[in-house]
Amino acid sequence: MTKTEAIELLLSKNEAERALETAQTLFHWDAATTGVPEKSLALRGADMGWLSGEQFRRFMLSDTLKAVETLEAHDSELDEFERAAVRETGHEYRKSVAVPPEEFQKFKTLVAQAEPVWEKARERSDFSMMLPYYQKIFDYQRRLCDWYGYEKHPYDALLDDYEKGANVEMLDGFFALLRAKIAPLLKEIVKSGKRPKEITGIFDIGKQRELMPWLCDFVGYDRTRGKVGEVEHPFCTTLSRNDVRITTKYHEDNLMSALFSTLHEAGHAVYEQNMDERLERYRLADGASMGMHESQSRLYENIICRSRAFAKVLLPKLREAFDFFGNWDEKMLFEAVNIAQPSLIRIEADELSYSLHIMVRYELEKALISGDIEVAELPGLWNDKYEEYLGIRPTNDAEGVLQDVHWSGGMVGYFPSYAIGTAYGSQLINAMRKGLGGSAGVDIDLAAAAGDLSPVTAWLKENVHKYGMLRSPDEILRKATGEAFNPGYYVDYLSEKFTALYLK
Amino acid sequence: MTKTEAIELLLSKNEAERALETAQTLFHWDAATTGVPEKSLALRGADMGWLSGEQFRRFMLSDTLKAVETLEAHDSELDEFERAAVRETGHEYRKSVAVPPEEFQKFKTLVAQAEPVWEKARERSDFSMMLPYYQKIFDYQRRLCDWYGYEKHPYDALLDDYEKGANVEMLDGFFALLRAKIAPLLKEIVKSGKRPKEITGIFDIGKQRELMPWLCDFVGYDRTRGKVGEVEHPFCTTLSRNDVRITTKYHEDNLMSALFSTLHEAGHAVYEQNMDERLERYRLADGASMGMHESQSRLYENIICRSRAFAKVLLPKLREAFDFFGNWDEKMLFEAVNIAQPSLIRIEADELSYSLHIMVRYELEKALISGDIEVAELPGLWNDKYEEYLGIRPTNDAEGVLQDVHWSGGMVGYFPSYAIGTAYGSQLINAMRKGLGGSAGVDIDLAAAAGDLSPVTAWLKENVHKYGMLRSPDEILRKATGEAFNPGYYVDYLSEKFTALYLK
Repeated sequence: MTKTEAIELLLSKNEAERALETAQTLFHWDAATTGVPEKSLALRGADMGWLSGEQFRRFMLSDTLKAVETLEAHDSELDEFERAAVRETGHEYRKSVAVPPEEFQKFKTLVAQAEPVWEKARERSDFSMMLPYYQKIFDYQRRLCDWYGYEKHPYDALLDDYEKGANVEMLDGFFALLRAKIAPLLKEIVKSGKRPKEITGIFDIGKQRELMPWLCDFVGYDRTRGKVGEVEHPFCTTLSRNDVRITTKYHEDNLMSALFSTLHEAGHAVYEQNMDERLERYRLADGASMGMHESQSRLYENIICRSRAFAKVLLPKLREAFDFFGNWDEKMLFEAVNIAQPSLIRIEADELSYSLHIMVRYELEKALISGDIEVAELPGLWNDKYEEYLGIRPTNDAEGVLQDVHWSGGMVGYFPSYAIGTAYGSQLINAMRKGLGGSAGVDIDLAAAAGDLSPVTAWLKENVHKYGMLRSPDEILRKATGEAFNPGYYVDYLSEKFTALYLK
Repeated sequence: MTKTEAIELLLSKNEAERALETAQTLFHWDAATTGVPEKSLALRGADMGWLSGEQFRRFMLSDTLKAVETLEAHDSELDEFERAAVRETGHEYRKSVAVPPEEFQKFKTLVAQAEPVWEKARERSDFSMMLPYYQKIFDYQRRLCDWYGYEKHPYDALLDDYEKGANVEMLDGFFALLRAKIAPLLKEIVKSGKRPKEITGIFDIGKQRELMPWLCDFVGYDRTRGKVGEVEHPFCTTLSRNDVRITTKYHEDNLMSALFSTLHEAGHAVYEQNMDERLERYRLADGASMGMHESQSRLYENIICRSRAFAKVLLPKLREAFDFFGNWDEKMLFEAVNIAQPSLIRIEADELSYSLHIMVRYELEKALISGDIEVAELPGLWNDKYEEYLGIRPTNDAEGVLQDVHWSGGMVGYFPSYAIGTAYGSQLINAMRKGLGGSAGVDIDLAAAAGDLSPVTAWLKENVHKYGMLRSPDEILRKATGEAFNPGYYVDYLSEKFTALYLK
């Protein structure tokens, strides 16, 4: 196979995989936004199963490896897009062939059975229903570590699936810092007894809906290159960089829920829309990692939009729409969107305590993978850790160990990305303010207060978004911030913000 | 290849083709119901192109033919589903291989270019823009007749693509009857000067929307096995028999537009939903022909729902929703939904004159294919025929020969299905009333007036719907009505209805 033939082969594979994947994305969008008839699920499942199976089958053909090996031998002649495509394709291919196909099939069947059981187990708050499934799932994950291979800790092998470059050494350091600084801060805040005025009442959904275009525009989400849907559980999904869709769920009794979830999803969408258009044909038009994607959504949602500067532009909009805010001032709004309190449910957690929820899951996953604990011990250990780090104890497994879908779906090693991403965001924002990454320093508060985030988004586009998967998170951080991953910025940011809000 | 292997092969091909086709259906639904970003069209087109190309490529693999030939040799051992699948697959395959692949590719490119030109040509009412495209398209169609082969008239070969079993001999007879009976009737009606009171004014779209569930239920469209969307140009589309979707377009100033178009699309949907579930894996879950599909939508829309009996149940609903109908009675409503008048635009034509529009197109297509006329003569001949049959003459090509998209899309031989379908409907309804097709005779007016069409739909399910493509239109008609296609019922139905409305 010549170099040219190998590139042609990869590109034509990419075209097929993209079409097959986009079709699956559309099935998901369709189901989430408009629902599907109950009775159509079986055939629909068969269609989606065929599309994903075909995508995998095509990827796993031996000519994929042959093309990769051919191009690896021509490495110095490749441009950066080709090189990254070879790197990513080769990495994914080699991981996939490392797993015995019959084991992979059995595992897919297992998780397909486990998810509906998890739904019921959570409803009934009955961990024993999930116990045999979790045992088999974690047993497979431990074997997966061996098939994938690892240098230091077996859990490193799993982390790679979600956060390339992350490992136990790095995460131990990160979480140690959170344990030392953030867990005590949360407890101090509880002790202080300070409680900001909350945003309560009923807020007309039509009026909430009218705010959305402004929020999307503020973040820089280009609505002409996507669309906004309404769903039960909000998400962002990409059909192409020119068709990036976000979704929202409105709650009459919770105005801030749709508002901040829209900002969050719009943050994801801006990343997707700002990627270099050349990435698409190389299948590199995705986030550098799960964590890097999450960093963008959370820095828009939290660092920028839960700031006092944003409260300043948000308040007049809220006043215009809702009488409720008649007597509110900017400081009150800033405080109300930053209520910090220990809670049991991760997805409802505030900015300060969120990563502590992740820490619980990280410690348990790591110990399960290294064999230090057994699946049967999970409920007790989970509750102990919540008590230790958050100061509250779940009273049942539905609000404890059964709350997340991830494990029943076979996703182990995924949770840390959420916390790492948040920390990436602080490190990037810090560099942006300081004028690293080829800019004169962006005054984010000034931009937010002026209602024009374009300098922020321009910096992120230039330093993060445009690269897609061309660069690893580590390369992105080093080039943009001048250093490797440093969670210190995140801890400092949280400490300063919440100390000022609660303890001064 | 053994018989079992051949069946397995066809079924596995079916599964792949169904998934690929359903994905394309979803792309169309997505675009029509919620629109797609302009800038995403190129990549989206590439994805859809890949999916349809892959579907065709898989179908055209030589093992398809091998499986068909193997099963043809085992014909007596096949069940009726297998036999029909072999018949349909073999027929489609042999037609496809009859076309030289490079000619087919050139033609696909040609129509892809022609459609946007047609949009502009129609806007500017400039036939000369389309002339070179139509020349090439009809030239290809003439060669297609030779590739496909035919016994009597070359046009028969094209008709087969849309209406299996239809031919020039049958259509000449059909249209001769329309020319002799319906064209003069329309002229008599015009001469009578009788003009029913029209439904005019502004009708709140929200209130129109509220009527739709009742309309769908009335026709027997099961909304739990589908969904209803809003689009610019209404259609019915099938993801599976348990996910059949219809769409509507509301006009504030035309209440009857959405109402009857919903009844029409729901009629298509009922056909799809009532098919035998075993048909799906054999890819036989589609209408017996274009015309048979149209027969179902039109018999619900026109024969049943433009009846006096339906006016009786519709009027109270309209009164409840709109003050406009305060002084209306059932007879006025019946007359208002049956206004017959010559018009220039096919898709706006009334029940009486509709088939005359088709007759114009049939005569022109047939003459073009047989070489009796040239493409350049189309505008003049088109206008002459409108003047002759409908008594009015288009003043420009936009309201004349350029009004339909079909020819620019390469669809020649399609139009007759619309008229044949309408005639099938009359023949079926006649048999249903008389108690043929294994029932005691259905009193359709009684059913409609009682607001319960279930005896009608049960008869259609048993005699038409459940068969899908298992039986040809001819077989369906013979079994259900005891005779071959007989357009006499249609002409009698129209004559009686419109004579009573206008000339008595």
